[in-house]
Amino acid sequence: MVLVLRGELRLTAGKTAVQAAHAAVMLADSTRVSHPKWVAVWRQQGQKKIALLANDLNEMEELRRRALARHLPVVWVEDAGMTEVAPGTRTCLGIGPAPAAEVDAITGALPLL
Amino acid sequence: MVLVLRGELRLTAGKTAVQAAHAAVMLADSTRVSHPKWVAVWRQQGQKKIALLANDLNEMEELRRRALARHLPVVWVEDAGMTEVAPGTRTCLGIGPAPAAEVDAITGALPLL
Repeated sequence: MVLVLRGELRLTAGKTAVQAAHAAVMLADSTRVSHPKWVAVWRQQGQKKIALLANDLNEMEELRRRALARHLPVVWVEDAGMTEVAPGTRTCLGIGPAPAAEVDAITGALPLL
Repeated sequence: MVLVLRGELRLTAGKTAVQAAHAAVMLADSTRVSHPKWVAVWRQQGQKKIALLANDLNEMEELRRRALARHLPVVWVEDAGMTEVAPGTRTCLGIGPAPAAEVDAITGALPLL
């Protein structure tokens, strides 16, 4: 599972951590039904998560398109916007759980957060 | 739900985000059975999460004791230690989901991450 944060928003460390946590819970929930085998392997192997950094929303939308084209689980986190950003702002793109090669094909070039 | 990070470890932003995400998924999973009513309310209200900062492990252990005394859900995140910390290092304490007043009684004095 990768958690891609939107760099241009320049969120605080705390806000960043919360957006990543939102994405992870949303993916763990939604894939329980949609991708049970990938989720089972992911849980057995310690629920690996990697936080990555994208420059901006355009880059994240392109990543999302490519992930969907490979039928990978994806989720947008939209912030309620009570503190650092406007309501509905997309802050994080979550992808997975999925086999590492599938995820790397999409996000392998992104820097670590 | 609060995600309490261990300040003395001085983790990177990415490592911090991943530890918070681990705690959130672990709590969302474990409380599905143990605290179904609190989880249902939490999900209906947007899965609120707050990232907080503790100084060190001693402070986190005291928070955990107080949370357990109130019968709140708690979880330790132990890092696999392949990058920034030694294997088994406790990096994050998750508490909740639980009513805000219950959680605030434990962590209300901690600074935001």
